[in-house]
Amino acid sequence: MASFVGIDWGTSNCRAYRIDGHGVVLERRTDGPGILAVRNSDFSAALTKIAGDWIDVGSGTATLMSGMIGSAQGWVEAPYLPIPAAAADFAGRLAPVPDPHRRIFIVPGLHGVGPAGPDVMRGEETQIFGSGIEDGVVCLPGTHSKWAVIAGGKVVRFATFMTGEVFAVMRRHSILGRLMNEAPHDAAAFARGLVRAQAPGGLLHHLFTVRTAGLLEGLGRDAAPSFLSGVLIGEEIAAAKAQFAPASVTVIGSMPLAQHYAIALNVAGIAAATVAGDEAAAGGLYRIARQAGLLG
Amino acid sequence: MASFVGIDWGTSNCRAYRIDGHGVVLERRTDGPGILAVRNSDFSAALTKIAGDWIDVGSGTATLMSGMIGSAQGWVEAPYLPIPAAAADFAGRLAPVPDPHRRIFIVPGLHGVGPAGPDVMRGEETQIFGSGIEDGVVCLPGTHSKWAVIAGGKVVRFATFMTGEVFAVMRRHSILGRLMNEAPHDAAAFARGLVRAQAPGGLLHHLFTVRTAGLLEGLGRDAAPSFLSGVLIGEEIAAAKAQFAPASVTVIGSMPLAQHYAIALNVAGIAAATVAGDEAAAGGLYRIARQAGLLG
Repeated sequence: MASFVGIDWGTSNCRAYRIDGHGVVLERRTDGPGILAVRNSDFSAALTKIAGDWIDVGSGTATLMSGMIGSAQGWVEAPYLPIPAAAADFAGRLAPVPDPHRRIFIVPGLHGVGPAGPDVMRGEETQIFGSGIEDGVVCLPGTHSKWAVIAGGKVVRFATFMTGEVFAVMRRHSILGRLMNEAPHDAAAFARGLVRAQAPGGLLHHLFTVRTAGLLEGLGRDAAPSFLSGVLIGEEIAAAKAQFAPASVTVIGSMPLAQHYAIALNVAGIAAATVAGDEAAAGGLYRIARQAGLLG
Repeated sequence: MASFVGIDWGTSNCRAYRIDGHGVVLERRTDGPGILAVRNSDFSAALTKIAGDWIDVGSGTATLMSGMIGSAQGWVEAPYLPIPAAAADFAGRLAPVPDPHRRIFIVPGLHGVGPAGPDVMRGEETQIFGSGIEDGVVCLPGTHSKWAVIAGGKVVRFATFMTGEVFAVMRRHSILGRLMNEAPHDAAAFARGLVRAQAPGGLLHHLFTVRTAGLLEGLGRDAAPSFLSGVLIGEEIAAAKAQFAPASVTVIGSMPLAQHYAIALNVAGIAAATVAGDEAAAGGLYRIARQAGLLG
């Protein structure tokens, strides 16, 4: 079988893979522009620049893309698939990109309705299907962290937590940032934040205690960002634990963040394993491409 | 008894009152600069500009100030008083401002230790002591909302919630803001946000549903800020309810925010009354001044 091109194309990152017919990643490139950085939204030109030399036009090499490239801000909007959904359900539901010379498709995101309303993901579904997890709870940490329950290879429930973005805006734009230096991860301060998150009071109170910890408990300016991270990740895990009650969780993501989540899960009494996010993306793109018959 | 000058001087607001010996507010000015807006931190000159004509130097007219003017960023740092604390406990603990011609004092803030660590307030204690509440639970909404339990005229417990600041930074700096217009308060959207806050999932999840409500539930751009406000105020009240279990709460603050809190309290099954924040500040300054013997 021929190779194909898989692209995990998000808001601020673009990771491209040339993958052979057996799922082996032959080449990878991680320096493409996120969709918001593509000039004039000319995604056709951007794709040529990212992976044009991989796409053998005469042979009909397929390109399969996942992530925000399929959103209203992307190339072609790929309507969400409802859950429950398995990798095989994407066959026939890939969004074709109109392109005169190339065979290009986009993986739809997923849509579900949880107890607090509707929820969506784009890109994470592909990582989930490439993670090797057929039954269990997975967590994909990030700007908008996703938690999903997988049963029999299907995503049956999921929820989003705005953890990474709340960290970024509080770090940069709130009074808490004035008590912080740029500094490397501080494991002890992170652990203090995780413990703080388990105290009564709720997140809006715990956030203020980042300030009082600096004023009154000797939390240093270098340690404060890790403390804030611990408070937020601890809150996310406590809320997800209440919702999904997992005995163990597989964290799909990049180091060191995935490792921080694994530690935080352990502090919350949950066993944790990690899977590299880029491997999961490539694996999911391959699995969906094969099941959709894109490999010829 | 002579009149005195009371000033509620916070980070971004300054409210000055000329108050007679019976506690009657003779004049008020609300257009002074917050402490961060005082040029070169020359608070002596700023005070002269705000209320110099009220301070009859020969007579020894006293000036009593509360709020962030007593912080490290203010005029003179007034060390926090530990709780439990009553208005009478401030006598002898007011921080004198070195000034050759005027008698000026600053009300210390309060310091307590709750289940999630230390907590502080500056300025709200004065409003509490001027609210007329001797026993009960009060809420002072704002950038950093304060909740306090009052027993026998003493503040015995309190907690801070970063509700207003989280609203502001998420509104201005997060992806949620891209789904919002500047718009007047929308009572129906606010109520939807309050209900959302009561669903399972936790604040980090509920914040993301502000986005999905815009994408998938028809929440309009004009309604979205009120929905976000409802989510955050609803979360604050749920957390405070879990901590303090009040049957009723007195909200001390300005309209319309105090009224929004009263509605939110009712939705959470808690009876609510409101007290105007500026009246409470003037009343508290008078009560503390009288008990400290500043009225001659």
